[in-house]
Amino acid sequence: MADLWQKAMDHAVTIARRAGEVVREALCDDRKVMTKSSSVDLVTQTDQKVEQLIIQSVKEKFPTHRFIGEESVAAGEACDLTDTPTWIIDPIDGTTNFVHAFPFVAVSIGFSVNKQMEFGVVYSCLEDKMFTARRGKGAFCNGEPLQVSDQQDINQSIIATEFGFHRDPETVDKIFSSLRNILCIPVHGVRSAGSAAINMCLVASGCVDAYYEIGIHIWDIAAGSLIVSEAGGVLMDVEGGVVDLLSRRIVAANSRTIAERVVKEISSFGLPRDDALPPSQ
Amino acid sequence: MADLWQKAMDHAVTIARRAGEVVREALCDDRKVMTKSSSVDLVTQTDQKVEQLIIQSVKEKFPTHRFIGEESVAAGEACDLTDTPTWIIDPIDGTTNFVHAFPFVAVSIGFSVNKQMEFGVVYSCLEDKMFTARRGKGAFCNGEPLQVSDQQDINQSIIATEFGFHRDPETVDKIFSSLRNILCIPVHGVRSAGSAAINMCLVASGCVDAYYEIGIHIWDIAAGSLIVSEAGGVLMDVEGGVVDLLSRRIVAANSRTIAERVVKEISSFGLPRDDALPPSQ
Repeated sequence: MADLWQKAMDHAVTIARRAGEVVREALCDDRKVMTKSSSVDLVTQTDQKVEQLIIQSVKEKFPTHRFIGEESVAAGEACDLTDTPTWIIDPIDGTTNFVHAFPFVAVSIGFSVNKQMEFGVVYSCLEDKMFTARRGKGAFCNGEPLQVSDQQDINQSIIATEFGFHRDPETVDKIFSSLRNILCIPVHGVRSAGSAAINMCLVASGCVDAYYEIGIHIWDIAAGSLIVSEAGGVLMDVEGGVVDLLSRRIVAANSRTIAERVVKEISSFGLPRDDALPPSQ
Repeated sequence: MADLWQKAMDHAVTIARRAGEVVREALCDDRKVMTKSSSVDLVTQTDQKVEQLIIQSVKEKFPTHRFIGEESVAAGEACDLTDTPTWIIDPIDGTTNFVHAFPFVAVSIGFSVNKQMEFGVVYSCLEDKMFTARRGKGAFCNGEPLQVSDQQDINQSIIATEFGFHRDPETVDKIFSSLRNILCIPVHGVRSAGSAAINMCLVASGCVDAYYEIGIHIWDIAAGSLIVSEAGGVLMDVEGGVVDLLSRRIVAANSRTIAERVVKEISSFGLPRDDALPPSQ
């Protein structure tokens, strides 16, 4: 069985790289002719094209496996995490970055069996960085081992978060309240890269000490979550409990100390769970 | 005279690349042995070493030129912009990023004559991207011409800003007020890369539509300001007037339309000017 997952992981790396090429080509070729009104179409087209590329190639090799993909769920498919081997795919994590060619755009492929992540692959395709992790075998970037930072002092920490797509005043109040509390602990700095998967890889790489966000989906964080934990980091819910990848909320940090300190400052709020989306009800 | 400035610019590119190597080596070699208490020392040492490397090599070739350097000013030298040819140097823009190996760290070298920028060089040394601009001759990244975005719709725009080092409640109020106003225009997204010079290069590259910040210094923005304007962008004060590189405030945008829209949302505040710092009084 272990060998089978290794083959699946090898395939994930190959197909993530190929998907990254498609993303890069779309940026180089299509963005030139992109107008304001067509930018959303370019995203949708490339997103769908890349997700189909990944799903088709996986189906050929692993016909019994299931899929949770951002575009498939948007098209009405269920978002259930079962015990069946499941590929959890975000074809373009950082779609706003993609539209603007902001340099953090990733293909994210996670793989779970019995609701447990077995491997995660995040390909930051404009940086050409391939982040990989297999359960119990460590995390790597372009083959080099990753290790979270050993920072235990929150005042010396750098924190990543995102404003996301929330624009309603009540939610924005909470986002700004959390951010202000954290900034004024004080911390060393706050960064927004615009991609959940890459924020998590920055935690795994030791460049960021903690990342938190409310509003993300399982396909944004599935691969990254294993990369963080295999690099020695910890995952937590924004209220401090055990992380639930379907709950739309996460804290990923270098250590329990930093994660718990960040959690203390977060004004949390709830969103409909990924598995409560209309198609799966 | 034009030829002399071209020679100076060629030298700036060469020395920026060499400085970038020193920064990369410091990150690879010294960061491994860096402890929490020694991280500030590493920054200071590398900052000073790189600034001295640049200043010494320029002095040998251009003995009559003046300098404004972050570390020199910190050490008590004057920060006066005169008509004399002046090299304006930030040896490491993004020092917090440097400490954490967050991938946006730049060497910034601007050059002014008669208080006008003649060339600007920003070397993003972890990305290995060399941004250059010469007055009237365009802006480039690794030799490829740069062009700001043609986005005129603020709702489709991506905005960069930083929280900086301000932690006093009154200033933080203003920073959050501006940020919230801008986010809720609404814009497409807000990013924080942690380096003024690189934020400006992202504007010049068309990846970000506007960048604004209060608190930066002339050495953070001198080179970047020419790169933005030579890529077709505009510079503005945060209150909408003409930009003053010594005023600690800037808006850099793809167009006047976007710059003016951003300015409308900024709760501005003043800080002691760079040329009012104690050493130059």
